[in-house]
Amino acid sequence: MRISELSATTGVSVATLKYYLRERLLPAGASRGATRAEYDDTHVARVRLVRALIDSGGLSIARVHQVIDALDHPPDTWHDLLGTAQSTVISTDRDAVATEPDGDDRVSRLLDRLGWQVAPCSPAVAELRAALADAEAAGVLDSDRVLESYARASRRVADVDVRSVPDDPESAVRFVILGTVLLQPVLRALRLLAQQDASARRFADRRSR
Amino acid sequence: MRISELSATTGVSVATLKYYLRERLLPAGASRGATRAEYDDTHVARVRLVRALIDSGGLSIARVHQVIDALDHPPDTWHDLLGTAQSTVISTDRDAVATEPDGDDRVSRLLDRLGWQVAPCSPAVAELRAALADAEAAGVLDSDRVLESYARASRRVADVDVRSVPDDPESAVRFVILGTVLLQPVLRALRLLAQQDASARRFADRRSR
Repeated sequence: MRISELSATTGVSVATLKYYLRERLLPAGASRGATRAEYDDTHVARVRLVRALIDSGGLSIARVHQVIDALDHPPDTWHDLLGTAQSTVISTDRDAVATEPDGDDRVSRLLDRLGWQVAPCSPAVAELRAALADAEAAGVLDSDRVLESYARASRRVADVDVRSVPDDPESAVRFVILGTVLLQPVLRALRLLAQQDASARRFADRRSR
Repeated sequence: MRISELSATTGVSVATLKYYLRERLLPAGASRGATRAEYDDTHVARVRLVRALIDSGGLSIARVHQVIDALDHPPDTWHDLLGTAQSTVISTDRDAVATEPDGDDRVSRLLDRLGWQVAPCSPAVAELRAALADAEAAGVLDSDRVLESYARASRRVADVDVRSVPDDPESAVRFVILGTVLLQPVLRALRLLAQQDASARRFADRRSR
């Protein structure tokens, strides 16, 4: 198909498609003369993936590059694959908050109590410290008991993540990398709906003040 | 304190503080003559809250306004309070995808199976449809069984949310409104760490390809 048809099929403007081509987010079409290129279903799938990563995943163009690189050149081990997937969703500009060298902060104590096997220098640890600091500054989540309950509930979500990794290696790579990005908005929406249900059953007749 | 001291205390530049004042995100200080205003601890807390909502919550200025309005004028019932809190985190530009009138799509069937008490026209339902459509387009989460497992795991998170609402009405309003926004990044980081633990226990020696 021509670029105009690729645009019609995906609902993405020709100008945006040309931008994706320049940015190498979309591989060039097969050349059909000096001014024409031919696109196929792999291009349609790639454009939809880029849109999903930007719209639903909220990723920057640089992050989309990282995800696509990881899909095209998957790491050798499960461990590295997970690390790559996680690094695509973690904001690097939080690094300043990352370094708490003493190991006796709230996050280290939580991980100790839970007995989780995580790398202490993992970006996700820094991300948790930063997110907790913001929540604490706003006066929410100051109870260690509540934090631990959230951690145990999150472990249930991660169990589903890890249990659902497909056996076929290529699907597994897609699932781990895209699932880390694209399931987050699904989980957020499920949390909101579950809150409605939990609240309907508990507070239906109570007033807030 | 003067605005320069408010800036030093919060780490937010004077130019940004003046922007917050113009946008009415920050109440004016007490007037001390024509060119001076005096700020206090309530201003420090407000600036920190605005920064947390923007940095950690990823909210736009318009959304920050909504959250602060909701804190200053909380709704009368728990039900309305939850609705207000949820509307601050749901992207309204997803409304186009929202209307699926037939009630026989994947999300409606899921909610039926779970027996959750949710408003079918709730923005969170539309949000779930949109997020699921993006995940499906990328070829992840096409199993209804896995989706249901995520929903049940999310219900655990929501149980913690609802169980943790403080008894004191003012704290409850803060917790519900700020918790919906600011706990999301905490939950995301906890999911990543829990994935590391679940993966370490399950796949440590397996290779991705």
